[in-house]
Amino acid sequence: MAEFRLESSAKRNNNVESVENVERTVFFISDGTAITAEVLGHAVLSQFPIKITSYTLPFVASETRAKEIKQQINQIYQDTRIRPLVFYSIISSGVKNIITSSEGFCQDIVQTLVAPLQQETGLEPKPELNRTHGLTEKNLSQYDARIAAIDYALAHDDGISLRNLDQAQVILLGVSRCGKTPTSLYLAMQFGIQAANYPFTADDMDNLQLPATLKQFQHKLFGLTISPERLAAIREERRENSRYASLRQCRIEISEVEALFRKNKINYLNTTNYSVEEISTKIIDMMKLNRRMF
Amino acid sequence: MAEFRLESSAKRNNNVESVENVERTVFFISDGTAITAEVLGHAVLSQFPIKITSYTLPFVASETRAKEIKQQINQIYQDTRIRPLVFYSIISSGVKNIITSSEGFCQDIVQTLVAPLQQETGLEPKPELNRTHGLTEKNLSQYDARIAAIDYALAHDDGISLRNLDQAQVILLGVSRCGKTPTSLYLAMQFGIQAANYPFTADDMDNLQLPATLKQFQHKLFGLTISPERLAAIREERRENSRYASLRQCRIEISEVEALFRKNKINYLNTTNYSVEEISTKIIDMMKLNRRMF
Repeated sequence: MAEFRLESSAKRNNNVESVENVERTVFFISDGTAITAEVLGHAVLSQFPIKITSYTLPFVASETRAKEIKQQINQIYQDTRIRPLVFYSIISSGVKNIITSSEGFCQDIVQTLVAPLQQETGLEPKPELNRTHGLTEKNLSQYDARIAAIDYALAHDDGISLRNLDQAQVILLGVSRCGKTPTSLYLAMQFGIQAANYPFTADDMDNLQLPATLKQFQHKLFGLTISPERLAAIREERRENSRYASLRQCRIEISEVEALFRKNKINYLNTTNYSVEEISTKIIDMMKLNRRMF
Repeated sequence: MAEFRLESSAKRNNNVESVENVERTVFFISDGTAITAEVLGHAVLSQFPIKITSYTLPFVASETRAKEIKQQINQIYQDTRIRPLVFYSIISSGVKNIITSSEGFCQDIVQTLVAPLQQETGLEPKPELNRTHGLTEKNLSQYDARIAAIDYALAHDDGISLRNLDQAQVILLGVSRCGKTPTSLYLAMQFGIQAANYPFTADDMDNLQLPATLKQFQHKLFGLTISPERLAAIREERRENSRYASLRQCRIEISEVEALFRKNKINYLNTTNYSVEEISTKIIDMMKLNRRMF
């Protein structure tokens, strides 16, 4: 289980003369999911012109496991004479000390920010209280709300059901493949927000109107739009050479839907250059929704 | 847009005598989604016995917006004589300087780790290269893979379709409400992993067998189980006082399904005390799946 393998780091460069092409091995190590270590570590590394080979090692909770990893880190250092970079977040001091005694260049992603805060607040930190992305008695009811939000998104995906829209915190509108479903699911998963979504289809285009059922929820409506070129490319993946995927059809649909958004004073966002994370947080921002944490 | 409001911080304590009950106002500020600032900031703060009132302010990209926020931070300081805690990640030095010149106690969540790395690598960091959770030309095809994985999870949720299971990277098995759907969706959303899931129902229990269609994908199967008590509580929310939600029925189903997992040598995990993040990363770990980043 969680056996450590090295296949992708077979090629390595012992020569550090050309710094622009430095290759470094990176470890993201955590006694939890390692999601934070990985995301933050990548954010830090992305600022350097380094080619990385990375290993994400979650649930490192025992000293035995830590010793195995230390040995791997040291082996890489002996083979390459380049210190592996290690981003870690580990609560147990026994496990932590083994990792930091390796030949890796180790940075504690959480504790680095804890020390200054300790000084500022005059309070003693208790590392054992921290369990990011964990489930505790305390957050169990919040957690149920998150699962309920996922159920809601699935039950109200793609206009499947227009019942219980009064329970939606936001209702996303847009043409097929503009990002409604991933956004609804992300809002539910990350923030526990109940999001419904409703599609406008090719058949609606002759006389595009806002359905009466939706009109009563005007204040919850949010439109998604996208460049016709990107839309055509996405649709082409689904149905090659179809009318549905043609640039002409995409242009008509987008132009009609944007006109409808403007006419009905519905906030909308062009998703072309945004990730699901960005679209979701922009919606929360624009609609002033409550941003929960899990 | 993104108007800053203070309703939840109405009550505030000017008295810092009892440090155990210190109340602090916290800002998570970013020129992006602020997801990393929020997650990491909470991880840091959770180690201190502080009661927090927090504001997450994403997409802070202009100096005008930064000045508004600085004013809010300073106002809180003037009202309470307690410095607000600020966790930020901002690329533009103009915007950043405005925030850090406020009365808040400001910590840059990414740059704190960049400086030591600069020394270790001898390389000059380029902050403008960093855009966590962003969409770029470079990751556009990866991004399409993520959307495809979400589509796949939806098309193969709850045994809806047993076609194309050869394209699944993992197939989750378990009884109704043990966590299959959220886990499949999270694997797709966070890691771009194509996960199908298949339910065992009450009707299957008399003579529980692994369906022939699944047997051929033995190496991709992964079981989810849960304590009967927690299962009954979750089902009770759905169908009150039903046979489906009875502790007796839950016990029978769980015991039968666990026996099937053992008999067929299927890896399985008890999800009772784990979040979706933990379940998903444990599956990746145990099944040695490729953990992509988005």
